[in-house]
Amino acid sequence: MFDLAEAVAVLERTPGAVRGLLAGLPAAWTSADEGPKTFSAFDNVGHLIHGERADWIARAQIMLAQGENRRFEPYDRFAQYRESAGKSLAQLLDEFAELRAANLVTLRGWQLDARRLRLEGEHPAFGRVTLAQLLAAWVVHDLGHIAQISRVMAKRYREDVGPWREYLPILDRGPS
Amino acid sequence: MFDLAEAVAVLERTPGAVRGLLAGLPAAWTSADEGPKTFSAFDNVGHLIHGERADWIARAQIMLAQGENRRFEPYDRFAQYRESAGKSLAQLLDEFAELRAANLVTLRGWQLDARRLRLEGEHPAFGRVTLAQLLAAWVVHDLGHIAQISRVMAKRYREDVGPWREYLPILDRGPS
Repeated sequence: MFDLAEAVAVLERTPGAVRGLLAGLPAAWTSADEGPKTFSAFDNVGHLIHGERADWIARAQIMLAQGENRRFEPYDRFAQYRESAGKSLAQLLDEFAELRAANLVTLRGWQLDARRLRLEGEHPAFGRVTLAQLLAAWVVHDLGHIAQISRVMAKRYREDVGPWREYLPILDRGPS
Repeated sequence: MFDLAEAVAVLERTPGAVRGLLAGLPAAWTSADEGPKTFSAFDNVGHLIHGERADWIARAQIMLAQGENRRFEPYDRFAQYRESAGKSLAQLLDEFAELRAANLVTLRGWQLDARRLRLEGEHPAFGRVTLAQLLAAWVVHDLGHIAQISRVMAKRYREDVGPWREYLPILDRGPS
């Protein structure tokens, strides 16, 4: 199923989708979360930025280099609490778009073929993974965070919808 | 929690968010679904369009009129299979944006106050509901479909992510 051009088609749209959803919204929407250690919409954007800086491309580079040590650095899921401090959502949306665009230039520059998509690295939790799996996970991770942003925001109105709650399952999905 | 201006802020962004996510994507992404009687991304946009035509504003008008019969027409969850036939996704994205913009002009024109937000109608399944509940449900319904579009697309790569599946819960959420 995985196809590099199709994967890139999603990856390049994520910053625009997130911007369309969030830019200019009242802070009541973008700062709401689902409880302790869960992400607000604002936190989700910071988390996506951290992934651009520290995760996807950095891990792909380890796989492509095929050095002695192919073990990835563990990923810090809470880095954005620190890194986003003092920034506005508008700044984060710009930063995400710029980093993503630059990372896709890097990815395209590699001109990956089927052989290199099978190169392996070592994930700190679940061991051997391929470059194709990493890129597929990048796509799914984007889509998962768009869904998460939508869910976190929706839950502000969990009580306000009254009996419609029964028809709106997003209101009763747990945080993830 | 419900605030009309805040609700409108989300409602007016949904067409841009959906366009950012989907416009120009390969059909492999937009036509994938989660099995029989589930919606592809394309179907989701058609469903949102049907809601603009037949549901939210029409039901609000029944409530505002406070006539003898305040019972809503049952909503056809599968109307879009018929109504979207022969249309391109680009057409649907335009149509949704135009209908939503016109509906928000109508909504703003009503200049709803707290008293009118308490007006009631009769939902065919769960009885009495207020206008504020209807408008809150409209917002949550939008966000639910953005999450659904993301989930349907993500599942194309359920196997491709290999062991990352454990970290990507969107891949194992049921259709809704």
